Amino acid sequence: MTDARSARPGLMVLEEALDALLASVQTVADAEALATFDADGRVLAQDLVSALDVPGHDNTAMDGYAVRVADLQAAAGEALPVSQRIPAGHFGPPLKPGTVARIFTGAPLPLGADAVIMQEEAEAAGEADGVSLVRFKAQPSMGQWIRRQGEDVRRGSVVLPAGTLLGPAELGLAASIGHSHLVVKRRVRVALFSTGDELVMPGDVPPAQMKPGAIYNSNRFFLRALLQRLGCEVSDLGIVPDQREATVAALRSTAQAHDLILTSGGVSVGEEDHIKPAVQQLGSLDLWQIGMKPGKPFAHGWLERHGHDGRCHFVGLPGNPVSSFVTFVLLVRPFLRRLQGVAGPQAGGLPTPQRLVAHFDLPKGDKRREFLRVRRTADGGLALFPNQSSGVLTSVAWGDGLVDNPPGSSIRYGDVVDFLSFDSLLS
Amino acid sequence: MTDARSARPGLMVLEEALDALLASVQTVADAEALATFDADGRVLAQDLVSALDVPGHDNTAMDGYAVRVADLQAAAGEALPVSQRIPAGHFGPPLKPGTVARIFTGAPLPLGADAVIMQEEAEAAGEADGVSLVRFKAQPSMGQWIRRQGEDVRRGSVVLPAGTLLGPAELGLAASIGHSHLVVKRRVRVALFSTGDELVMPGDVPPAQMKPGAIYNSNRFFLRALLQRLGCEVSDLGIVPDQREATVAALRSTAQAHDLILTSGGVSVGEEDHIKPAVQQLGSLDLWQIGMKPGKPFAHGWLERHGHDGRCHFVGLPGNPVSSFVTFVLLVRPFLRRLQGVAGPQAGGLPTPQRLVAHFDLPKGDKRREFLRVRRTADGGLALFPNQSSGVLTSVAWGDGLVDNPPGSSIRYGDVVDFLSFDSLLS
Repeated sequence: MTDARSARPGLMVLEEALDALLASVQTVADAEALATFDADGRVLAQDLVSALDVPGHDNTAMDGYAVRVADLQAAAGEALPVSQRIPAGHFGPPLKPGTVARIFTGAPLPLGADAVIMQEEAEAAGEADGVSLVRFKAQPSMGQWIRRQGEDVRRGSVVLPAGTLLGPAELGLAASIGHSHLVVKRRVRVALFSTGDELVMPGDVPPAQMKPGAIYNSNRFFLRALLQRLGCEVSDLGIVPDQREATVAALRSTAQAHDLILTSGGVSVGEEDHIKPAVQQLGSLDLWQIGMKPGKPFAHGWLERHGHDGRCHFVGLPGNPVSSFVTFVLLVRPFLRRLQGVAGPQAGGLPTPQRLVAHFDLPKGDKRREFLRVRRTADGGLALFPNQSSGVLTSVAWGDGLVDNPPGSSIRYGDVVDFLSFDSLLS
Repeated sequence: MTDARSARPGLMVLEEALDALLASVQTVADAEALATFDADGRVLAQDLVSALDVPGHDNTAMDGYAVRVADLQAAAGEALPVSQRIPAGHFGPPLKPGTVARIFTGAPLPLGADAVIMQEEAEAAGEADGVSLVRFKAQPSMGQWIRRQGEDVRRGSVVLPAGTLLGPAELGLAASIGHSHLVVKRRVRVALFSTGDELVMPGDVPPAQMKPGAIYNSNRFFLRALLQRLGCEVSDLGIVPDQREATVAALRSTAQAHDLILTSGGVSVGEEDHIKPAVQQLGSLDLWQIGMKPGKPFAHGWLERHGHDGRCHFVGLPGNPVSSFVTFVLLVRPFLRRLQGVAGPQAGGLPTPQRLVAHFDLPKGDKRREFLRVRRTADGGLALFPNQSSGVLTSVAWGDGLVDNPPGSSIRYGDVVDFLSFDSLLS
């Protein structure tokens, strides 16, 4: 369970923890039909097959004139009559030999035409017998500005496979082949709670009246927002007191209606932690010491569900805000994507890092692999937040990503380092 | 209005278009108070000032023992008595000289203690006079595992400036200093419509019964999702017929209640386009030919609002799905961020590209600067979607970003190119 990446015996390597976490997942099975408009962020439960070609017909990509290339070669610069006019959404008759058709973007190409000339390359040349004449500045090449039938989507093809995470482009693509509704996985249900007698909800006690040792609960706020951004249905159970019985009762009832119970705080091996025995009483729990900073104590397990198939997953994050945030984006996000049924390249794991230049010095690297909060500078380098303490959430708000720094590695100004952007970690 | 980046006279450079667009913005002025829980994706309207230090007191970052370093040096490996026990949320008396305090993560440090030793480095050493004794495996360094009062946030400091785009970390940070509510800019109101007689809504006509030339409206779907992801309030006005009077009437009433009217289709210079004269009748409209592919025809203007301060902005995107998508993420997204009042590094413009290796050949670059749809490969390179036609939305769904390829540039396998990830373009 250790290798060079953890550098300390007994500590798990992040990738091993992630693999173990993903291997444990029971993907949500239930599906539901939704309006395509409402399916952003959902996961496709069935292959999406096209019932039509897109485009449905050869059509023009530009406003201009549909022509026969051979006619223009024969005309040798002479004006040609405009024999018809085809707006988008209308079909014209076959193109009369020796003539051209005025045509507008998206309109179907008339039979016989084999190129389109942009209107910018055409000029009016008077009339003959009441018919407009037009002259062209350039010879067209065969097929130019024509969008071919089925070039976007072929009838009968799988346009999006089951397991696709739907975003704006996927919704547009589904709509383009006529799908007003989509069959998607139901949302993953996550119960969120924090533990710790010292936690106070903002608004309950004004800053000036905070008792010594009391701190405002911040983890609930960012964890809820992170879960919602990932498309989860979140039940926020608030702060559970540091008492064994209350914890067991809360977990037992919550497991029934949720796919995942996510907690922060209470998962270290301290005597004051009641989560571990409570989960073990209701199912199983492993405490992982992952070789990473911030974020060492991480709990993973499950709780029995009665009268349901499957189990309720359990993940316990560290209580320190930065540790909680970093373990969420590195471990819980891919876990949730798997739980949601996301397949293929979007299912992820850790994103591929960018190789960027450090505009800072880190004279002494931590013994553990460290995820440093950094911000991209205007000139494409990386600046380091001066305070890398795990209690300091300002570093995450200030930063726009993490440097993945190997155990014991120092960094010198100008070194190329591995950067994971929050954009990629939150998407 | 042209330089080397556009390579064709008369075409605007993308960055010039973006600058002109941003310079025209009238930022939303109205603000509202919201529960911090509901403020993800909103923009801070006032500086957020802390009324307290975070942490409020020096406290321990680990479960372990609070000690005096000098006492441990004096003890020289001998066991020391545990004189008190301090759970999180509780305050202990000053540390008795020659003793240590059992202490749990987050608990305030007792007066006199100057380091914390992790419990993993301690071992029980029996009792003396009913008091537990503990021995330590290592000498602590001064201040170790102590989080200092105010090291996260200092009382009176600006924690987040006005104009901050609020995400999960920012909400957590605001909560950590006791803010249950935040004053944010009101949402930007965007009216969305598509134009084009050829457009059919999915669900209205089954694929087998589509008339020749008819196509399903896909732009509405991805534009609505993109706008919602950016935190806009979207009024979807559907498809406006290709008729001048209907267009004028729709625009006039819509301008009253919205900050931006966004259309797709109908903004080229074709005879069938009714948007341009309609907007000009109600305000002003410029048609930009931007030197980029996809995405050349782009309209920008404003409409008079009666009885309101300011104007309603107008942006007309090209009708081709890919052109519409690409111009949205490159131009409309930064425009909306400015409209929302986002300031500082998040306000953006174009994101800084990543320099990645092309795993494809592009023997002949387009005359225009081209945004090629690509996907990152498992080994960190970029693969090209084979069909780069602007009608082909599959390229965007398949891809995870754009290569920004200069005019006339060919690309050879192994070349390093500029990559803009959709993660960074959609965040």
